Amino acid sequence: MRLKCIVSYDGTNFSGYQVQPGKRTVQQEIEAALSRLHKNQFVRIHASGRTDAGVHAVGQVFHFDTDLTIPEEKWPYALNRFLPDDIVIQQSQYVDANFHARFDTTSKEYRYIISQQEIIDVFRRNYCYHYPYPLDLDAIKKASEHLCGTHDFSSFCVARTDVEDKVRTIYTIDLKKQGQELIFSFKGNGFLYNMVRILVGTLLDVGRGKIKTDEIPNIIAGRNRNLSGKTVPGHGLFLYKVSYDN
Amino acid sequence: MRLKCIVSYDGTNFSGYQVQPGKRTVQQEIEAALSRLHKNQFVRIHASGRTDAGVHAVGQVFHFDTDLTIPEEKWPYALNRFLPDDIVIQQSQYVDANFHARFDTTSKEYRYIISQQEIIDVFRRNYCYHYPYPLDLDAIKKASEHLCGTHDFSSFCVARTDVEDKVRTIYTIDLKKQGQELIFSFKGNGFLYNMVRILVGTLLDVGRGKIKTDEIPNIIAGRNRNLSGKTVPGHGLFLYKVSYDN
Repeated sequence: MRLKCIVSYDGTNFSGYQVQPGKRTVQQEIEAALSRLHKNQFVRIHASGRTDAGVHAVGQVFHFDTDLTIPEEKWPYALNRFLPDDIVIQQSQYVDANFHARFDTTSKEYRYIISQQEIIDVFRRNYCYHYPYPLDLDAIKKASEHLCGTHDFSSFCVARTDVEDKVRTIYTIDLKKQGQELIFSFKGNGFLYNMVRILVGTLLDVGRGKIKTDEIPNIIAGRNRNLSGKTVPGHGLFLYKVSYDN
Repeated sequence: MRLKCIVSYDGTNFSGYQVQPGKRTVQQEIEAALSRLHKNQFVRIHASGRTDAGVHAVGQVFHFDTDLTIPEEKWPYALNRFLPDDIVIQQSQYVDANFHARFDTTSKEYRYIISQQEIIDVFRRNYCYHYPYPLDLDAIKKASEHLCGTHDFSSFCVARTDVEDKVRTIYTIDLKKQGQELIFSFKGNGFLYNMVRILVGTLLDVGRGKIKTDEIPNIIAGRNRNLSGKTVPGHGLFLYKVSYDN
C-alpha cells in the first residue's frame, strides 16, 4: 500500500531535507523512523521536493510503500513516536499506487517571514529574517504584480544549476502584515532552486528603493542572476502547502 | 554607574539562569559578554531571581555596576553583539546606586502556555506544554479565584526548600484562549520555588475534574505539597515582567 504523509519540521537543526552522508537531514530521520517501524527493513521516502538547511516546512508531503496494516489515521501517532521532536507527521492517507509526491504536485505555496522589530524577538529568531528597515509596501506590491505569471525565472535562480527549463508560473504573491512581521506568500506551479529567497531579496530592495518597481520586467527579461537582489537567509522560509489534483 | 537591563531569553538550551560549574547558564553567558566588554575584568550581575532549566524570560531584570560611559540606549546593542542569539537585551537604563534588581521588586508576572492542539505544532514545542485534553475553563477560573490573595503557599512549593516564610500574595490569575493555546497569567508579590508550575498543574487537574473547585481552600490550608497537582514542565513557563516602584 502507498501512504501519503503531510509532515511539518523545524529546519533549524537540519542540514536540509535531502540525505547527505554524515549530516543530520529530515529525510534520513524519517527513513530511520520508518525502518524501525518495519523491523529494520529499509524504507525509502519520496518528497515533493527538497528544502535547504534552516528552511522549515508546515506542510511538506512525501509518500512511501508499506506492508504494515495500520489504519491511516493512526499512522501519524505510530511514526511520531519514533521521530525526533523537530519533525511531526500531521496527517496520513492511503493513496493510489500511481501517486507520486513529487511528480503529481499541481501547486506549491511557500511563505517567507520578515521581522521589522527594532530589537529581535528571541523566540522568533529561527523563524523569521530580522530586517528592521523601513519598507515601501506599496512598491513591493506593485513589483509583485510584475513577477506573477509565466516567465523564465533565470534571474531568480542560482546560476549554476542542472535544471534547463527555467520557465515557471507564479499564480499569486501576497503580502500580509501581522504585528511587526511581514508574511510573504508565493503560490506557483513550481519554484527553482533558491527562487523564493531571491524573489524576497529583490522585493526587499524594491521596498527600500534600491530597485525601482518598473525595473522588474527588465530584470526578468535579462535572465541574469546578477540583476536581481540577494538571497535572503533560509530560516525565514517555510514550505507551507503542497497541492495535488485529488 | 549602576545599569538596569531588561533581558529576554529562550530557556531551551540553558541549564537555567544561575551559574553552575560546567553547565551553560544565562547568568554565565551575560557575565562573560560583560567581561569581554570590560577588557576581561569580571562583572557580576544581579537578577530579580532565578529561572529553572527550560524556563524562558520575556522580561527578566538584572543590574550591574560599570565604569564604561556608554549612553543607556546604546547598551542593548553593545551587549547583544557579545551575547549568543538565545539571549537578547531589550532595554537598559542607568539607575540609582541603591537600586537592587532582586530586593526592590514590587511584583512579578509569570505566564504559562498550554497547547490543546491534537497534534503538536512543531514550531511551538519548546514554548508551550502540549496538553490535548478537554478542560472545564469555568472550573479553572473559579479555582483561580480561591488561589488569589495572601496565603501560605506551602502546598504549592517544592517540599525541600530553605525558604521559611511561604506566605505570598497573588494579585491576579488570568486565563486567555488564543487559537488552540491557553495562556495563564499570574501576578503576585513573589513566587516560591516551582510555585507557578504547581499552581498550573493543580488548575489543570481542576479543569479535568480530578480536583473539585471547592477543594482548593482545603489544599491551601493543608500546607502539604502532596495535596496539590503535579509540577508541569518548565518549557511552558515565561518570566514575563518584573515591576519596581520607580
